[in-house]
Amino acid sequence: MSQQSEPDRFRITALGPCTHPSPLGMSTVSGDGVGDYVPDDARVLYDIVHRLGEPVNCDLSFEKAGPRQHLFFQPDKTKAAVVTCGGLCPGLNNVIRSLYYDLCSNYGISELVGIRYGYQGLNPKIGRPPITLSGPFVDEIIHFGGTVLGTSRGPQEPAMMVEFLRRERIDILFCIGGDGTQRGAHAIAEEIARQELPIAVVGIPKTIDNDIQYVNRTFGFITALSEAEKVIDGAHAEAKAAPNGVGLVKLMGREAGFIAAGAALANGQVDFALIPEVPFRMEGEDGLLAKLRRRLHRADHAVIVVAEGAGQDLLADCPDARDASGNRRLGDIGLFLKDQIQACFGAREVPVNVKYFDPSYHIRSVPANTADSILCSELARHAAHAAMAGKTDLLIGLWHNCFIHVPLAVSTGAVKRIDPEGELWIAVLASTRQESW
Amino acid sequence: MSQQSEPDRFRITALGPCTHPSPLGMSTVSGDGVGDYVPDDARVLYDIVHRLGEPVNCDLSFEKAGPRQHLFFQPDKTKAAVVTCGGLCPGLNNVIRSLYYDLCSNYGISELVGIRYGYQGLNPKIGRPPITLSGPFVDEIIHFGGTVLGTSRGPQEPAMMVEFLRRERIDILFCIGGDGTQRGAHAIAEEIARQELPIAVVGIPKTIDNDIQYVNRTFGFITALSEAEKVIDGAHAEAKAAPNGVGLVKLMGREAGFIAAGAALANGQVDFALIPEVPFRMEGEDGLLAKLRRRLHRADHAVIVVAEGAGQDLLADCPDARDASGNRRLGDIGLFLKDQIQACFGAREVPVNVKYFDPSYHIRSVPANTADSILCSELARHAAHAAMAGKTDLLIGLWHNCFIHVPLAVSTGAVKRIDPEGELWIAVLASTRQESW
Amino acid sequence: MSQQSEPDRFRITALGPCTHPSPLGMSTVSGDGVGDYVPDDARVLYDIVHRLGEPVNCDLSFEKAGPRQHLFFQPDKTKAAVVTCGGLCPGLNNVIRSLYYDLCSNYGISELVGIRYGYQGLNPKIGRPPITLSGPFVDEIIHFGGTVLGTSRGPQEPAMMVEFLRRERIDILFCIGGDGTQRGAHAIAEEIARQELPIAVVGIPKTIDNDIQYVNRTFGFITALSEAEKVIDGAHAEAKAAPNGVGLVKLMGREAGFIAAGAALANGQVDFALIPEVPFRMEGEDGLLAKLRRRLHRADHAVIVVAEGAGQDLLADCPDARDASGNRRLGDIGLFLKDQIQACFGAREVPVNVKYFDPSYHIRSVPANTADSILCSELARHAAHAAMAGKTDLLIGLWHNCFIHVPLAVSTGAVKRIDPEGELWIAVLASTRQESW
Amino acid sequence: MSQQSEPDRFRITALGPCTHPSPLGMSTVSGDGVGDYVPDDARVLYDIVHRLGEPVNCDLSFEKAGPRQHLFFQPDKTKAAVVTCGGLCPGLNNVIRSLYYDLCSNYGISELVGIRYGYQGLNPKIGRPPITLSGPFVDEIIHFGGTVLGTSRGPQEPAMMVEFLRRERIDILFCIGGDGTQRGAHAIAEEIARQELPIAVVGIPKTIDNDIQYVNRTFGFITALSEAEKVIDGAHAEAKAAPNGVGLVKLMGREAGFIAAGAALANGQVDFALIPEVPFRMEGEDGLLAKLRRRLHRADHAVIVVAEGAGQDLLADCPDARDASGNRRLGDIGLFLKDQIQACFGAREVPVNVKYFDPSYHIRSVPANTADSILCSELARHAAHAAMAGKTDLLIGLWHNCFIHVPLAVSTGAVKRIDPEGELWIAVLASTRQESW
Repeated sequence: MSQQSEPDRFRITALGPCTHPSPLGMSTVSGDGVGDYVPDDARVLYDIVHRLGEPVNCDLSFEKAGPRQHLFFQPDKTKAAVVTCGGLCPGLNNVIRSLYYDLCSNYGISELVGIRYGYQGLNPKIGRPPITLSGPFVDEIIHFGGTVLGTSRGPQEPAMMVEFLRRERIDILFCIGGDGTQRGAHAIAEEIARQELPIAVVGIPKTIDNDIQYVNRTFGFITALSEAEKVIDGAHAEAKAAPNGVGLVKLMGREAGFIAAGAALANGQVDFALIPEVPFRMEGEDGLLAKLRRRLHRADHAVIVVAEGAGQDLLADCPDARDASGNRRLGDIGLFLKDQIQACFGAREVPVNVKYFDPSYHIRSVPANTADSILCSELARHAAHAAMAGKTDLLIGLWHNCFIHVPLAVSTGAVKRIDPEGELWIAVLASTRQESW
Repeated sequence: MSQQSEPDRFRITALGPCTHPSPLGMSTVSGDGVGDYVPDDARVLYDIVHRLGEPVNCDLSFEKAGPRQHLFFQPDKTKAAVVTCGGLCPGLNNVIRSLYYDLCSNYGISELVGIRYGYQGLNPKIGRPPITLSGPFVDEIIHFGGTVLGTSRGPQEPAMMVEFLRRERIDILFCIGGDGTQRGAHAIAEEIARQELPIAVVGIPKTIDNDIQYVNRTFGFITALSEAEKVIDGAHAEAKAAPNGVGLVKLMGREAGFIAAGAALANGQVDFALIPEVPFRMEGEDGLLAKLRRRLHRADHAVIVVAEGAGQDLLADCPDARDASGNRRLGDIGLFLKDQIQACFGAREVPVNVKYFDPSYHIRSVPANTADSILCSELARHAAHAAMAGKTDLLIGLWHNCFIHVPLAVSTGAVKRIDPEGELWIAVLASTRQESW
Repeated sequence: MSQQSEPDRFRITALGPCTHPSPLGMSTVSGDGVGDYVPDDARVLYDIVHRLGEPVNCDLSFEKAGPRQHLFFQPDKTKAAVVTCGGLCPGLNNVIRSLYYDLCSNYGISELVGIRYGYQGLNPKIGRPPITLSGPFVDEIIHFGGTVLGTSRGPQEPAMMVEFLRRERIDILFCIGGDGTQRGAHAIAEEIARQELPIAVVGIPKTIDNDIQYVNRTFGFITALSEAEKVIDGAHAEAKAAPNGVGLVKLMGREAGFIAAGAALANGQVDFALIPEVPFRMEGEDGLLAKLRRRLHRADHAVIVVAEGAGQDLLADCPDARDASGNRRLGDIGLFLKDQIQACFGAREVPVNVKYFDPSYHIRSVPANTADSILCSELARHAAHAAMAGKTDLLIGLWHNCFIHVPLAVSTGAVKRIDPEGELWIAVLASTRQESW
Repeated sequence: MSQQSEPDRFRITALGPCTHPSPLGMSTVSGDGVGDYVPDDARVLYDIVHRLGEPVNCDLSFEKAGPRQHLFFQPDKTKAAVVTCGGLCPGLNNVIRSLYYDLCSNYGISELVGIRYGYQGLNPKIGRPPITLSGPFVDEIIHFGGTVLGTSRGPQEPAMMVEFLRRERIDILFCIGGDGTQRGAHAIAEEIARQELPIAVVGIPKTIDNDIQYVNRTFGFITALSEAEKVIDGAHAEAKAAPNGVGLVKLMGREAGFIAAGAALANGQVDFALIPEVPFRMEGEDGLLAKLRRRLHRADHAVIVVAEGAGQDLLADCPDARDASGNRRLGDIGLFLKDQIQACFGAREVPVNVKYFDPSYHIRSVPANTADSILCSELARHAAHAAMAGKTDLLIGLWHNCFIHVPLAVSTGAVKRIDPEGELWIAVLASTRQESW
């Protein structure tokens, strides 16, 4: 029977009172067969695991996302914009399409425009004009990878972007992107607040690396795993076909190894998964090379998956590798491993057959699969609900399978990384049966 | 700062004290870089959404699944068995393979056998002898649909099955199956308890319909949606290619419409989703036929997805349809809809072009995709952990993204169904923009 | 050193002399590194297999397709139209897109329009106006099944259609379709000839059943096999998972069993392939039921693939089946087989587990795969070449891997069927190891 | 009415007279509904295109492959072996499986063994013992990429290999591989001939590059195109998403550009295809860089596909590139192009966004698709027929869609390459609309 106080940190900013009834025609009572609006004070607990007999921590909770009974914006007088920033991610077009139907068909807003090529499109000096989205324009885009609006990297000056929003009479801006994009969105929201404008900024998290805080799973991530799995299958086939065959796959993940870990877990045929969060050594009895020798002795073949950000200390510490390979290998853990394995076995006159796979952008440039399509649809819808209720400077999160509102300032503090003591890494170790490093 | 008492209902049965240390080599302290065992009193809250200022309900919680520090069974003297029952589901072979590696490689048990053709394999009069699983046997099976052990429907006599387990010296039985299978598993566990035998029975939920209680998502479900989506894409292509084209797809789901709802949501091109939980009418201004007429008038084509269990009242109440079509249509909502639509438009001399798709078993007989492969691996691993700790008469559930232990008696009470007021159905209505029925 | 005379039957009609130089910039001499125009008298032999010492039959040959040095139509004054008729087939959009780029970009014609919904679009009373094709319109359509122009079945009155062509000032009509469509195209060409109009009619063969004469392989066929294969994989998984499991798959093919035969050959897991061209019996020692019993006794499971047109004599001759099942089964060989197998084994009290798959339109409504994409591109290009040279009343054929011109009157005489003594059926028998019927 | 003399070059060697009747139970008369044996003097014409009024060249023809009425080997006393050599290719396992069923089930030979890891397995000093193939061993292997027998590169000493065949009492050796493998097979056959042994050596062509003479299409090629197409789709998505985006894909093809050309043709979204057979320049108004600038100016994005063997003269002639990049870029045309494009646009201060894709082995390590599965099945079957009839020192070719026998000495003379004046390259130029180089 707890009472909780709400830490300020997770409080969501609102543009003002909600005076317009929602046109969604939902209900406020359960049992009438009609779906219910989410009350504004509904919260999702931060911690849901506890030990019997010990108190549950109810102090920390997130605002629950969902359709609100009353809106800040009057739909038929509202114009919204959506911008996609940063690297590609499967599902961008799904989010755009769902936003269109949620806002224009379900809420009935007057217009949704698409900003071209990321934040560049909010800079009138270099950007192209926005395009008005329509049914024919968005209907088939879910079948394509990429983003139909175009994207770019890097920020633009907040005041200039806010000026653009004002001039274009845009009431809501949806920013689809990763950590940098959301920091940019926060800067826009702060500038809007400074100018006391009634413009909502809602972030939709997008990162192929799955490394945004308070978002259990980002859209496109499962699709990327699926593509990575196919490459691993090929590496497995190559490894098995050769005597002492080694299939080596480098996957995306600069700061966080979620793709490498997830693909290894899903595929089940990976013998070694190497991620940035868990350092490893090459030499010594528990080094990768010795483990690989034992694995090859035992099973004739091996599959290694390495995140691009893994083992960066090895590259720095290894002057030979640097001398031999020059700048190109600085940071290229895949080629480093390939060379080291070949050199190590060569020195022992044991034939080894390393096949190297670097799918690079391929895993992120495909259309979203089923799991991600659903997630995209849900994220877009919850973003629309939040924005129409005048909530701003927030990101749609996913916590314990619930969609939540997370203040942008909170979410963008630091990237999410794999906990070496957590369930995911335990599962990867159990699946690969690589000894812990 | 709540205290909670544990309702008896969710209490898990244990065979006895755990005296054997786990061989997994994990840790009990956080911060040492090594993954931690899950303490036996760790709980996952049942309710995690509340309203600000109101108390959190902490009374109800599930036992958290995971590796235990001490085991009931001494691994190298333990023999386990796995049985797959009921209809096919993508991922059965993944669960079998993961069980093999978790038990035989990680825990180091002495043997894992596979029971042939479901519970029939526990009946020596009709069954075939079990087979001992090995690395070569299981290594590649994840690439196939179906179950390498075979399956069958229906129960066998509990005392006979327990006698079989005794004679084969099986210490642990993993039962992979749906509601009926888990009821059978519960009967076996009860008979074991009556005889006071030290045999653990652990259920792993399997249902293509996703309708098991306390399991947010069952393995194979996303794969089935993915296959269903492809059929819907085809129906959409057929519908768009013809003047007044209607693509009509019947999908699995006798009691619960999760597949139809999920596929509609994922696909985004579905105009009408019909499920058993939400009755609908054919006639009248808000009946399906009128809505379809309006849709065709507006857009020239339409896609309808119907769960096989939807609209059964219509079939019964509709003597004309029964007269015209005889027994065969009793229950076949897909053919019923096809006929009704053709008759309705024919009567108005409006040409309509209905293309009917009935993928039937196809969506369940494929290999598991990435999302389901991970889930299978996790479910198997948590089942192994539970069994090795001597827990019995339970099922591995999934609640708020956490794996939990659910007593078989509790889980099998009733099937899970779509809440017409819940988030999933709201999302489907928003996506299809079909008016609520 | 043969001389051949050309039988009239294979002679191609031309609208008139070719006086305009081709804008393609190709060459007439070999060895200059530039691709060569095809001379108008180049021929592809009909028979290419002979016995040593016996004369080669050089009398019969087809006109070789390909770019001509001189054109009948002046490109920048030429307007063309394309129409898609009949059932869907993977690759229709590829043909449309390739026609657009070949004609508008490479030849530089003034306009290509798309006729809506098949020959209906040439009937101003019921049809919708044609649409002018453009790069943005066609660029992405190859990713979708179906036809972006729409289609319909059935003929329209030739004089009316020719009147439409005249009024719209269309110089070339490309007719994509099967036997009926090409008969319609021939009727249009005859009416044009009667009126002595300078309009070319060029047919592009399209039939999911692969049953057009002088076309070794039609586009979409390999894609359909690929989809059928997936269903067969599922049937195989279902069959293997059950004791005495039978996976039964019905595939398209009313007159010709190419899909069933090809899918069986490609899949390699089919035990019985049944096609219209090869009658079979149910009863007797060499009947299907006895063979199935032997197969199940030997291997516990079986996979049967049946073309929808197979065994129609059995349905007619079998009064019991008709009595029992009523009208619905007249012609439904799939359900007939399912019932007969269940009845036969039931009568012997042998449990059998038949899983029935009827993918119906699914295998034809998907996008074209790689093999078919290339074929579509080639067919469209050769059709463009033929039309620009003023050739008419012809179809682009494929013979010994060469693209050829076939008079419509010749091609539409009768459908192509599997030769029970030919290589394809021999291969199917060798692959299935079903004894010959 | 020609008579032809048979040039010695295409004559097939036979081990001796065929005295054993074939057990296949086929026929020698047409019209009896039973498939016919192929007579030994059946020939397939080399040239089938001629000009009207000119004589057909009937001098040159190939021996037609197919089942023979009489065999050299007595099936139940025959032991065969199969070896897979060189790089992976989709379909290796299909060929192995089909050989097993054709030989062991249909012909009823006594044993088929699989040689391990290529020709190494015929060297008892380093090789592992062969394994006897069986139904359970081969049944599911078609679902995997790679080769279940393993493979290796490089030759072994012929006399030693023949000694191995003698000692193992192997009557027939099937060699699956590319040019080097078939040269090795020819050396074995010559050594066998020298020793006058009754051992048949039959080659089955395998090359992912599709570059074997007298083989229109090798198995695995279409599958490789299909995988390459997916990567190109991703490159297209990346290119379109960025301002001035360039998707650059490097594909296999050292001597011959069939994969790059075929993938470009199939995909239809490629703007520049670069192959070894057609030199190109970087600089000048018709150089790649100028063409790319024009394309980007016109369309904002571009897709380039380059075969790994293309433009090697540029790398050699370009000292700057070599100085800057060191050994690693020697020969890496992909990275060279990436650098050159970035440098060229950078020098002009035009932003360009190059995304580089190097799928490397991925496109060859996947399972065979439908088109290739059928081809594998046919090749294996024709190889079995040839071998059982005592034909040796030959390769199964594919010519005008007919399976033929080609003497190994003839086939291995030189690799097949794309004819820059031929139909394939014309089609690629038409599809990419890149101006000819």
